[in-house]
Amino acid sequence: MENKIINLGIFGFGVVGQGLYEVLNRTKGINARIKKICIKDPNKSRPIDSSYFTTDKNEILEDPTIDVVVELINDTEAAFDIVSTALRNGKAVVSASKRMIAENLPALYELQSANKVPFLYEASSCASIPIIRNLEEYYDNDLLNAVEGICNGSTNYILTKIFEENLSFETALQQAQELGFAETDPTLDIEGYDPKFKLVILLLHAFGTFVKPEEVYNFGIHHLNDFDIQFAKQRNCTVKLIAQCRRQNGSVFAYVLPHLVKEHNLLYDVYNEYNGILLESAFTDKQFFVGKGAGGTATGSAVLSDISALLYNYRYEYKKIKQNNQPNFTNDVKLKVYLRYKTPDQVDLAEFFNISEKYESPEWRYVVGTINLQKLKDAGWLKKKDVNLLVLE
Amino acid sequence: MENKIINLGIFGFGVVGQGLYEVLNRTKGINARIKKICIKDPNKSRPIDSSYFTTDKNEILEDPTIDVVVELINDTEAAFDIVSTALRNGKAVVSASKRMIAENLPALYELQSANKVPFLYEASSCASIPIIRNLEEYYDNDLLNAVEGICNGSTNYILTKIFEENLSFETALQQAQELGFAETDPTLDIEGYDPKFKLVILLLHAFGTFVKPEEVYNFGIHHLNDFDIQFAKQRNCTVKLIAQCRRQNGSVFAYVLPHLVKEHNLLYDVYNEYNGILLESAFTDKQFFVGKGAGGTATGSAVLSDISALLYNYRYEYKKIKQNNQPNFTNDVKLKVYLRYKTPDQVDLAEFFNISEKYESPEWRYVVGTINLQKLKDAGWLKKKDVNLLVLE
Repeated sequence: MENKIINLGIFGFGVVGQGLYEVLNRTKGINARIKKICIKDPNKSRPIDSSYFTTDKNEILEDPTIDVVVELINDTEAAFDIVSTALRNGKAVVSASKRMIAENLPALYELQSANKVPFLYEASSCASIPIIRNLEEYYDNDLLNAVEGICNGSTNYILTKIFEENLSFETALQQAQELGFAETDPTLDIEGYDPKFKLVILLLHAFGTFVKPEEVYNFGIHHLNDFDIQFAKQRNCTVKLIAQCRRQNGSVFAYVLPHLVKEHNLLYDVYNEYNGILLESAFTDKQFFVGKGAGGTATGSAVLSDISALLYNYRYEYKKIKQNNQPNFTNDVKLKVYLRYKTPDQVDLAEFFNISEKYESPEWRYVVGTINLQKLKDAGWLKKKDVNLLVLE
Repeated sequence: MENKIINLGIFGFGVVGQGLYEVLNRTKGINARIKKICIKDPNKSRPIDSSYFTTDKNEILEDPTIDVVVELINDTEAAFDIVSTALRNGKAVVSASKRMIAENLPALYELQSANKVPFLYEASSCASIPIIRNLEEYYDNDLLNAVEGICNGSTNYILTKIFEENLSFETALQQAQELGFAETDPTLDIEGYDPKFKLVILLLHAFGTFVKPEEVYNFGIHHLNDFDIQFAKQRNCTVKLIAQCRRQNGSVFAYVLPHLVKEHNLLYDVYNEYNGILLESAFTDKQFFVGKGAGGTATGSAVLSDISALLYNYRYEYKKIKQNNQPNFTNDVKLKVYLRYKTPDQVDLAEFFNISEKYESPEWRYVVGTINLQKLKDAGWLKKKDVNLLVLE
């Protein structure tokens, strides 16, 4: 598409959509213009001219002059419908909908392949960090061992405020919401679903392995209390919500879990809404990427990077799928964890391989021990609000 | 070239060449094999079969079955001759020779363009960090303000040992040499020439601006003494050798200078032979890349990434050159510096705009003040071994 002006049809005009509009307006080198924006509510007041807007999706999907569909809406089902129709209609698609993508990766992979059109989604994982592109383009030849990091800006903002400024969980969450880093319903963030969707996408581009979100265990920071925070501080640690996937004996395991992180760890210094990703490979040891993980223009900028890449006919090659030596997914891995609870009946310590520390007080109890990830995933007792878990390094 | 096996002709079999050989051997997904390696000394004992080797460059350059020439030698003139002949002969070229590339960028740009062959050189800047590829592919649309970082592994190793383990400069340098991070003649590293060559390459891919190495001022860590180290420590700082290029009023300035770096700066935590690059842009704020900046397999891995990219017909687009709105290069920028000397006749303080601190003792004197970068570049007095300079944040 080089040297021609591409016409964009955008779905959604929330934080990211408006960020994209702003970024596009201030960037001179990109030959792309917005032709139409499809929104749900025609009566909402908008900061730009009303002629841009429509409520009819077919004004974009069936307009032959629109080259690229940019999908930025929150409704997972509607998003999948839009993206798959656009791909079938031969349009290139850019999307930022991590949940929709994570839940439909095999179908979307087939669609972009069968219709021979590019489908790019850099903004869906870690916003401004070009991690998918780097995993695709740069780490295809290396013996990648692990992708590990902080890929949820709002929980990282909350944890930073708790550990650096001694704010309460509630105040920190409210601040994150006011700054636009956290959704009005923060469940997906604080329970670790949002980083899990990103992890499922990264897993495919890192190792070529398709995994369903429900196969991956996530436990967030929603049970974190003052006792846990003291425990971390006494050990000169902070807490970070870590998403990781890692090779082990020819398989790959993955999870999203809160970790106790020591000061020497590069992830310790990733603050506020920033995201940080550590890649470990056989030849280059550790590589580390840091960038803003939330916010309209940071995410809009990632969307625009995809649009710009389309101008140069870029598409994901999915080389690791094609190389056909993907590791299998497993939850069979031992983790050393801190498990905090109130009364012994709340947890099942028999699930542990071993327990190395045990603490009791009238308020709280904890053990430090080793347990299988699959046991944690199956454990009903982790749903009890008196019970919290932290992975130890 | 997808799905065919590509034949490599390699020039040089030193640390990087052997690193490439090892990386290539252990990577299954790459359809590339070494056909011939051209070396200077046929009598040197080599770890691999002698049938690989030749001393006749034409056995590679004129072999029509060799698709890709990989240039990994130390001799700048010979390297340019090899690379330009290969490009003229229609072969794709991968090179790690930062000095040769930095000194010949306009000619090399013309050659790859005129002969329509790819010329890739990711390993020439920051070894394992995919910074050129990211500047090319990902930051073309963003309003990039600055590229700043540590891009010399051996000086960073030396500075780490000085500040973290209180080693002397000489002991730290010797360790770096023993570990293969520093050359036998370390002048290019410790005087800041090596990071300057990298900076000249990054400047082109960041902003589209061609600059000759001699236009860019570099001052290394060769004058650093115990007094300077104490000065830094008293201010809770470390010293890092920083290469940076930065937009300012429509122009771009660049330099390699030792900086006083505070603990909150992300570059503070880049230790040993690691490199770290901070990108600043209008929309994504800061982005940070960290990875190994020296060592055979880290650099070999970057070379292999370029070879792998060739399999997918990748080449640098040099979009920022083509967009034709490059900033001009300038040395007209004010810097706040610490200048240490022994006697007043050794420096010319009249060159400063202003001086905010002045210190005298029988052993050493220093001033803190503001001075123009062009004045520093022209100042003969910075060559005196009693005089040292540190940029303040």
